[in-house]
Amino acid sequence: MNLPPILSEADIIQGYLAPLAAHYRGAFGLSDDAAAIAPPPGMDLVATMDAVAAGVHFFPDDPATDIAWKALAVNVSDLVAKGAAPHAYLMSLAFPEPPAREWLAGFAAGLASAQTQLGITLIGGDTDRRPGPLTITITALGLVPAGAMVQRGTARAGDHLFVSGTLGDSALGLVLRTGEPQTQSWPLASHERLMLIRRYLRPEPRLGLIPILRQHARAAMDISDGLIKDLGRMAALNSLGAEVHASQLPRSIPAGKVVAADAGMISALAAGGNDYEVLAAIPPDAVAAFRARAKATNEFVTQIGRMTSRPGVQVLDADGAPITFSSPGYDHF
Amino acid sequence: MNLPPILSEADIIQGYLAPLAAHYRGAFGLSDDAAAIAPPPGMDLVATMDAVAAGVHFFPDDPATDIAWKALAVNVSDLVAKGAAPHAYLMSLAFPEPPAREWLAGFAAGLASAQTQLGITLIGGDTDRRPGPLTITITALGLVPAGAMVQRGTARAGDHLFVSGTLGDSALGLVLRTGEPQTQSWPLASHERLMLIRRYLRPEPRLGLIPILRQHARAAMDISDGLIKDLGRMAALNSLGAEVHASQLPRSIPAGKVVAADAGMISALAAGGNDYEVLAAIPPDAVAAFRARAKATNEFVTQIGRMTSRPGVQVLDADGAPITFSSPGYDHF
Repeated sequence: MNLPPILSEADIIQGYLAPLAAHYRGAFGLSDDAAAIAPPPGMDLVATMDAVAAGVHFFPDDPATDIAWKALAVNVSDLVAKGAAPHAYLMSLAFPEPPAREWLAGFAAGLASAQTQLGITLIGGDTDRRPGPLTITITALGLVPAGAMVQRGTARAGDHLFVSGTLGDSALGLVLRTGEPQTQSWPLASHERLMLIRRYLRPEPRLGLIPILRQHARAAMDISDGLIKDLGRMAALNSLGAEVHASQLPRSIPAGKVVAADAGMISALAAGGNDYEVLAAIPPDAVAAFRARAKATNEFVTQIGRMTSRPGVQVLDADGAPITFSSPGYDHF
Repeated sequence: MNLPPILSEADIIQGYLAPLAAHYRGAFGLSDDAAAIAPPPGMDLVATMDAVAAGVHFFPDDPATDIAWKALAVNVSDLVAKGAAPHAYLMSLAFPEPPAREWLAGFAAGLASAQTQLGITLIGGDTDRRPGPLTITITALGLVPAGAMVQRGTARAGDHLFVSGTLGDSALGLVLRTGEPQTQSWPLASHERLMLIRRYLRPEPRLGLIPILRQHARAAMDISDGLIKDLGRMAALNSLGAEVHASQLPRSIPAGKVVAADAGMISALAAGGNDYEVLAAIPPDAVAAFRARAKATNEFVTQIGRMTSRPGVQVLDADGAPITFSSPGYDHF
């Protein structure tokens, strides 16, 4: 079936995006130049902005539904780490050429599903045609009680370091996705390969942790550029350092098999990037409560080490000796 | 002098952008993943998002200070038309290659100057290197009293239509900038050519109109894609139309000279785009007060026609006959 081509911005906005904004009064059906947000009394808005581009953050032939998920999830991941409840987002789309209607329908369906699962609504943005990769830039807005945003730079020496979920799955999934020869020898069943690839395609914001981080975390951030790099940033803001135990880095069953077979792949867990898991510094006297509440909400959290007063991030092996990595993580330049 | 190259995202953020956010507490010196905004009680936030890209919205060799101005001004222009006072913005930068330090310094200086003049502060965003044109995507946030955002789709038949400033300067400036042969015959002094080009480079948000629009406008929007196109959008939202008198379209002295010498260039005023002037529908009984308050604040406004119950936008000549234009304005596709 040949559908008519997309001929105008209005085709995209009114045909595919406006339904995503239908239930937010201040979005005016995406027909206005701006959206109006009425913050509940006593709440701060938390704002974050991240772009994903074809060939950089996703593959051009990834399913449109997964591209939509990732674009929104990487932003919601930031809100979660700040203890902010997702509220609304604006989206700027850049298309190098008019998208196919089938692609747009899949993209909009992916956003609709992501909105429902992540509790967030489209309220505005813009759509342009210009050279360069397909790019989706999102500004996500969340809500926290006034003054309660969990900051990045407020950890103290002695705080216990926790991460959510498992590390390295996405980095390993990316290696699998690019079909590098070394992956032939990884002792994985096909469903395990698919699971790792899926973790690259669909990062999972840990929504259940939002109130728990707000109550118990002294500092937090999401891990997007690799644990070592991001932990280093968190520590440096307070002139601190951190010690992490490689054996404690949480790993999925497939990631565990890969590391068992190829010890060097511990770097995927420590420095792989694209995890979009929460890294949190918990004061010692709050650790028990943090663990208990995370468990009660079925959020998997793992202690991986501690903040130290000595600058620098050290990853220690089972004998307590530091491991060095060829690349500490991802830089956007 | 050879300055060291930009090697990392942190070079850009901490070296050039963080000073722009220094006076906003919730920006955390751009060291966090998100910003916290504490809205004053009783105020709504108004959010808008627009991108500008090299080769599309500006020329790659435009001065970096002017590129910065335009990126911010086109967003503030939307806030102004909504009656919202500029408050803060997030900015996503996409560089195809690491920028030169001289360029970054000019860009940051341009933003600093624009922030002061437009009353807005950087609070967050992201910086990436990826293929494609240099792109600056901004989400601007403004404040209005709760429920008071001036909407686009609320005009009524009989409302008087006003525009701010003068129309067509930017479109004519763009024609001059591209050096099209027809411009040789335009009867302009060199300072007049420069004035038109400057209007393309540096749109002027009409900040003085913010409270006046809030009090007197039934509907408003900024004109970015050409008067006819944008007025058509405003009218269509309420199944209305509009009549505009070509002779009443406000023009600068240079634009007036061009149109007098080349009558077809009236299209630059009616459909040229890039005006970033306010288009407002004023109820008949508010016209006198609107005019008086605009005059008292030195904001130049001109009545150009009226909203009608008959759909469609007509531009009428001095004899009341409709003028047709080959292109009604700019579409982003």
